[in-house]
Amino acid sequence: MPFPTPLTGVVPPVCTPLTPGREVDVPSLLRLVDHLVEGGVHGLFLLGSTSEAAFLTDRQRRQVVEAVVAHAGGQLPVLAGAIDMTTPRVLDHVAAVTAAGAQAVVVTAPFYARTHRSEIVHHYRRIAAASEVPVIAYDIPVAVHTKLPTDLVLGLAADRVLAGIKDSSGDLGAFREIVTGARAHPEFSVLTGSELFVDSALALGADGAVPGLANVDPHGYVRLYRMCRAGDWEGARAEQERLCALFGMVTAGDPARMGGSSSALGAFKAALHLRGVIDCPVTAEPQVPLSGEETERVGKFLAAAGLL
Amino acid sequence: MPFPTPLTGVVPPVCTPLTPGREVDVPSLLRLVDHLVEGGVHGLFLLGSTSEAAFLTDRQRRQVVEAVVAHAGGQLPVLAGAIDMTTPRVLDHVAAVTAAGAQAVVVTAPFYARTHRSEIVHHYRRIAAASEVPVIAYDIPVAVHTKLPTDLVLGLAADRVLAGIKDSSGDLGAFREIVTGARAHPEFSVLTGSELFVDSALALGADGAVPGLANVDPHGYVRLYRMCRAGDWEGARAEQERLCALFGMVTAGDPARMGGSSSALGAFKAALHLRGVIDCPVTAEPQVPLSGEETERVGKFLAAAGLL
Amino acid sequence: MPFPTPLTGVVPPVCTPLTPGREVDVPSLLRLVDHLVEGGVHGLFLLGSTSEAAFLTDRQRRQVVEAVVAHAGGQLPVLAGAIDMTTPRVLDHVAAVTAAGAQAVVVTAPFYARTHRSEIVHHYRRIAAASEVPVIAYDIPVAVHTKLPTDLVLGLAADRVLAGIKDSSGDLGAFREIVTGARAHPEFSVLTGSELFVDSALALGADGAVPGLANVDPHGYVRLYRMCRAGDWEGARAEQERLCALFGMVTAGDPARMGGSSSALGAFKAALHLRGVIDCPVTAEPQVPLSGEETERVGKFLAAAGLL
Amino acid sequence: MPFPTPLTGVVPPVCTPLTPGREVDVPSLLRLVDHLVEGGVHGLFLLGSTSEAAFLTDRQRRQVVEAVVAHAGGQLPVLAGAIDMTTPRVLDHVAAVTAAGAQAVVVTAPFYARTHRSEIVHHYRRIAAASEVPVIAYDIPVAVHTKLPTDLVLGLAADRVLAGIKDSSGDLGAFREIVTGARAHPEFSVLTGSELFVDSALALGADGAVPGLANVDPHGYVRLYRMCRAGDWEGARAEQERLCALFGMVTAGDPARMGGSSSALGAFKAALHLRGVIDCPVTAEPQVPLSGEETERVGKFLAAAGLL
Repeated sequence: MPFPTPLTGVVPPVCTPLTPGREVDVPSLLRLVDHLVEGGVHGLFLLGSTSEAAFLTDRQRRQVVEAVVAHAGGQLPVLAGAIDMTTPRVLDHVAAVTAAGAQAVVVTAPFYARTHRSEIVHHYRRIAAASEVPVIAYDIPVAVHTKLPTDLVLGLAADRVLAGIKDSSGDLGAFREIVTGARAHPEFSVLTGSELFVDSALALGADGAVPGLANVDPHGYVRLYRMCRAGDWEGARAEQERLCALFGMVTAGDPARMGGSSSALGAFKAALHLRGVIDCPVTAEPQVPLSGEETERVGKFLAAAGLL
Repeated sequence: MPFPTPLTGVVPPVCTPLTPGREVDVPSLLRLVDHLVEGGVHGLFLLGSTSEAAFLTDRQRRQVVEAVVAHAGGQLPVLAGAIDMTTPRVLDHVAAVTAAGAQAVVVTAPFYARTHRSEIVHHYRRIAAASEVPVIAYDIPVAVHTKLPTDLVLGLAADRVLAGIKDSSGDLGAFREIVTGARAHPEFSVLTGSELFVDSALALGADGAVPGLANVDPHGYVRLYRMCRAGDWEGARAEQERLCALFGMVTAGDPARMGGSSSALGAFKAALHLRGVIDCPVTAEPQVPLSGEETERVGKFLAAAGLL
Repeated sequence: MPFPTPLTGVVPPVCTPLTPGREVDVPSLLRLVDHLVEGGVHGLFLLGSTSEAAFLTDRQRRQVVEAVVAHAGGQLPVLAGAIDMTTPRVLDHVAAVTAAGAQAVVVTAPFYARTHRSEIVHHYRRIAAASEVPVIAYDIPVAVHTKLPTDLVLGLAADRVLAGIKDSSGDLGAFREIVTGARAHPEFSVLTGSELFVDSALALGADGAVPGLANVDPHGYVRLYRMCRAGDWEGARAEQERLCALFGMVTAGDPARMGGSSSALGAFKAALHLRGVIDCPVTAEPQVPLSGEETERVGKFLAAAGLL
Repeated sequence: MPFPTPLTGVVPPVCTPLTPGREVDVPSLLRLVDHLVEGGVHGLFLLGSTSEAAFLTDRQRRQVVEAVVAHAGGQLPVLAGAIDMTTPRVLDHVAAVTAAGAQAVVVTAPFYARTHRSEIVHHYRRIAAASEVPVIAYDIPVAVHTKLPTDLVLGLAADRVLAGIKDSSGDLGAFREIVTGARAHPEFSVLTGSELFVDSALALGADGAVPGLANVDPHGYVRLYRMCRAGDWEGARAEQERLCALFGMVTAGDPARMGGSSSALGAFKAALHLRGVIDCPVTAEPQVPLSGEETERVGKFLAAAGLL
């Protein structure tokens, strides 16, 4: 199956279930993949931020891609993050996930190093030149502390360096500029990473969405996508609002005890555990686990959304 | 030779010379080590930010530590950075650099992931529990976008989780709090990462300094250290001011063309090349190389400081 | 005419035309008001960021409100910013603009001072208690370096401390939370400050928009508003995209020579001058004026949008 | 008495005592001035951040300057802040505080507005051209979210636009560049705003210090200044460390309940109240007052420093 150009639809950033000893729980991972495929998703994005890629060792990253590709490869497109600080390290990850079977790689701007616009351009050019598979930019300023400039992205789209973008910046104005600018490059995929305004993004022309919450409720996001494509904006708004309410689970963790990723990823995994999809809700270190009371809060969000 | 407690003196973060093909240039690296040892430095810090650790692949990182330990191990303490995003990935680097012979590891707060204070504490506790060698905290907010809180550092010093700190925050007020607080823990090493106020840091009680510019002029920083230890504050100030002027080289690169790390690391390597220490001034990708004219500017800084 | 609850429609933040000597150009200001009223706007927001409130002296601020209220008061709602650092200073502005005839005041979180959530709450409570007119929160993190938390806004809405919000944060996810949360408070006005996704904001339930670009093309934004209200989402998208292209004018100024506000406000005023609405395109000090060539670029944006 | 060029010594940013009704408590203010003068300070800086200038109305600002100038003018230099967002508003404050008798004005970079380097330069040039008294730059990134570039400051010093700088950036490396660069302009005053490393700043050549904590312990800072000038670096270090411990009072307020300025300014005023200098420890709105228990903590810091 060739990689779609553009990639469209709902492409969840797949959570990485762990065992209590914090190894990849492959049976749970494959059950999660089945749950997503059964929910009708259009692709799988492995090793993204929601997948705890920043926390997985190289061995675990490879294990995730190999397991999912062996299980679901060929059924739907499988993308993988190649998340690291700079070009040479990213190139190693690109080679590893491609060897493991990923059909596209997702790459952020450099981080840790102070990064100039010209360096970001050179970074993507070098990676695209070396990669056997399409390269998708990952715009996530909250993690890398740089926003990809719109004209940089469109320039690299025009030169076919980038095959698409996953925009997790939350900046719909800049996203719109990319969507409209990319109409000149119909094979370029413009995907929103937002959970909260997928309807808006699709209404203004996005190709698809990569919402972390789709791990918990793939059916909901697929329904939302179909309603948008059918022009049923009233129905889409109602579905989106149900999903926004469900997303409230990311605040289940006490901010006095833990950071935002512990709370959000902990909530997604707690929800998958409560729904019977994965065996263990543990997150990678040094994240703080949700307490019993916090997990109950997650359950209430599920119940309110009709998912328990 | 046991690892000093505390570590004192001048401990340069050793640049990593590269070949034109951007592999580690081991002969140049060893010449650089000889240049530093001959300059009288008191330790070597490999795989720090100045070493371009963020740009080196795992293979290259191992190569650097193995080569330097084989060449100079036993003569002076060799520390190595274990720079990565989160605990599990850092643990892999700790194991790798320790196996390669490093006598201490230098570890930042988590980055890329959003990090809470309690997660930073857990991060260091897990790493120290797993490490065979002392763990030194690396406070570098410009890279990790978090400042290590003073009381967190002192708490981990009291619990002997941390063996020291390299402070590259530029915040002398907070540094002083650590210096005075750490008097209760005499084995704890308090090192400034500043090039520009080593005299001030030593005057208020720091154990030593880790200045990137000491690659270029180790003799200068060693002289400065000795004057401070001897209480010759007038002499120290004059030497420090000469080194501050020399540090101006980090602005040699045009900020319209490149970021701060391209300019600063490019200047250090150009200076080492001009001084005949390393064979090639190239920096790792995606950094932008200095132009001929920019390299000439570096030469003028060297000449003004009496180093050419 | 009572102040509408909620305020709906297009409410431009009115530019403040200046004379070459940088006094308020009252005749041009009134012509601009006529241009907006003739364009069909639903209210006027004086002394906002687009109005250069941060640059106007107290005397000039009063002059603006008095002139516009005398000219257009009673025809449509007139709001005024009370932009200053902290509660006591804001209270003085609230008294001044209310005395000058404003029917509502628009107030940011404290700035310059480091601000805690509890202090923001106290700030708005004190101001609402002292104000004779409704208080509308102004969420503009780019200026005040604080984002108003959603639950804080909804809590103050529930307590009728705040009568509405103008959201210039660019964060549509958080905006949506306020829109849906505010359904419990039907008199509360939820207004987007975005130029670029007014259609999206209205589609998800916003009451109206406060786009700076509506100074230049009020007819366009009023058309867009009406299409959205009529459910003509295809038409709205086309109109919004035309306005997004027009908004490109804010990049007319060379970023090597000037900051973002010089470029954006300079472009709006150049456009109003080119369209014959105001006599002089000058912006307040220390902003940098557009060059002739940069002004020509603004003209091209107008021409492309069919406005010249 | 002419304004000193350069201004040297200890120049406290004078707290502004308030009545319970939050009006300026002039008798307490004058007792505070007497306490400072008796402590041997070398100048008075009114209407700085520590003076709660951001919270005082224009009427109150004028009242402060008039009262202090009438009481102490002629005995020692009196500087006043002209803190506002942009050039035209600052010019009004410059005129007001000069009319009230200030001998120099202290001015930040623009804030609230997004500010470009060229705009900062123009800002200071315009203000200096209009001011009858010397203009001193106030570098306080924590409040204005811009750091004054070193070369900008030195350029304006060379052109005699600026008469000095108060550096509250905490960045000793950049401060040192200004100190050494300003040796070419001996009339230019280089003052540190730090409480915590006055000894370091003086050792490397600063002219003086503007420490908020000098309100509480002017004798300590004056002693520290004299020891530094006499070359007694050991004595200076001990005195500085005593003052650093005393500065711990700024953490007396619970960070879960209040921001940093409530805690720090609340502590300074509580300490002045406990020492019997001012009648009432209240801070301006919307700051949160210290609780009884938090005030007791302040008392313990005073006692430990030998001040109760």
